[in-house]
Amino acid sequence: MPKINRYVDIDTLERESKKDYIDRHSPFIHVQNSVKKGEKLAVTVKVGNEYSHPDDFDHYIANISLYNNETLVSRADFVAGTLGGQGAKGQLEVTFHIVPTAAKLTLVAHSYCTKHGLWESDPAIVDVIE
Amino acid sequence: MPKINRYVDIDTLERESKKDYIDRHSPFIHVQNSVKKGEKLAVTVKVGNEYSHPDDFDHYIANISLYNNETLVSRADFVAGTLGGQGAKGQLEVTFHIVPTAAKLTLVAHSYCTKHGLWESDPAIVDVIE
Amino acid sequence: MPKINRYVDIDTLERESKKDYIDRHSPFIHVQNSVKKGEKLAVTVKVGNEYSHPDDFDHYIANISLYNNETLVSRADFVAGTLGGQGAKGQLEVTFHIVPTAAKLTLVAHSYCTKHGLWESDPAIVDVIE
Amino acid sequence: MPKINRYVDIDTLERESKKDYIDRHSPFIHVQNSVKKGEKLAVTVKVGNEYSHPDDFDHYIANISLYNNETLVSRADFVAGTLGGQGAKGQLEVTFHIVPTAAKLTLVAHSYCTKHGLWESDPAIVDVIE
Repeated sequence: MPKINRYVDIDTLERESKKDYIDRHSPFIHVQNSVKKGEKLAVTVKVGNEYSHPDDFDHYIANISLYNNETLVSRADFVAGTLGGQGAKGQLEVTFHIVPTAAKLTLVAHSYCTKHGLWESDPAIVDVIE
Repeated sequence: MPKINRYVDIDTLERESKKDYIDRHSPFIHVQNSVKKGEKLAVTVKVGNEYSHPDDFDHYIANISLYNNETLVSRADFVAGTLGGQGAKGQLEVTFHIVPTAAKLTLVAHSYCTKHGLWESDPAIVDVIE
Repeated sequence: MPKINRYVDIDTLERESKKDYIDRHSPFIHVQNSVKKGEKLAVTVKVGNEYSHPDDFDHYIANISLYNNETLVSRADFVAGTLGGQGAKGQLEVTFHIVPTAAKLTLVAHSYCTKHGLWESDPAIVDVIE
Repeated sequence: MPKINRYVDIDTLERESKKDYIDRHSPFIHVQNSVKKGEKLAVTVKVGNEYSHPDDFDHYIANISLYNNETLVSRADFVAGTLGGQGAKGQLEVTFHIVPTAAKLTLVAHSYCTKHGLWESDPAIVDVIE
């Protein structure tokens, strides 16, 4: 409390409205699965995969946080209107560029909807190669 | 993942180091239990009750978020050095002043330690009286 | 660009609408003028002194930053609805509690209105006494 | 106060240390100069162009804000260690993806160094084509 909603594979769901509700709120991490040590890694977090979220003043995705295990890496805050404004829908997206210092990253993203709270992505593993 | 650590009554714990670890990371909400509708309510969140947390560059409390049920009310970000700096210890504290619009608030705070991740307070209930 | 609007003593202004516009957007720092070294100092930043700002979804005060000289001390983010919601007006307010490490603080606050941009307070000086 | 440092073309400067100081702190906006209405636009903000900034616990770039005229579009917060950690140097970088609603964007970025304060980019103009 607040609940952290976790992504559920929407192919396992029957109701269309439920698929939409879960997909449009869930952050998805898009990243390559390995990077050379010392090089910059682009980590894109996009909210929604097959569905889109409203961008209304009273209902929008307000922030995305990126964690590596228990540690916050970066956080981005957004305003209503980032995806076309009142009446528009879209998939909020931010790309963080990081130089990993550990041998392996276990990335997890959180997104926050001003009406439906906190949502957590599936983890993404990145190997850091010497 | 990241884990949300939840406060445990430290009187139920035996080990002193464990009491210290849990207490110094947990946010505590200090608030009166009712407020008149339309009036400002001071909500203080303090991290640590009987114990104190380091304020070092590589180990400090970096933010506090205040939720009402699933909804973010306010969030404050801090820097190392807020509580006396390198070598000092203290209880990070912020006071939000809000005018409740619901009949009842169920407040929960999160705090974030740069080494030991996310921590959640016990909920605090506030009745909003007409 | 973006412009940083600075507070102007409203007693020097003639037009009522201009007094209101400047006062309701400006952050005011409320703090004692000295503190003993090692003790916690409460720094309240309130937006508006004689006038109040709307708290509408498309027009509200979204954040307050507190600087000591060039250095960020704390920043708080708010949502529409903190001061009573759509149609209501109020003075946004947050209290930071800090243990100063310097001999003298020169505090300045910034506030941000989602329609009228960045505003800067007059500085507040605090002597830190050994 | 705090001062907003503005980028100066480093080719006009003589001293190498001054070129380095100004370049490594300044945010640079990388964006195409037009976009079709309703389409997503990638806006990359990178701190430093020819020089790099330390990534130490007590000296790093902690946030980047993106404004369109007077209005905040997005803000990203970072931690020390994003660019390789203690002893490493790099150019902090974040990409915001936005769907413009105006006919023309005038983008300006701010970056914040924990030792050397606020820095402002040159503006970048983007035409939004119907």
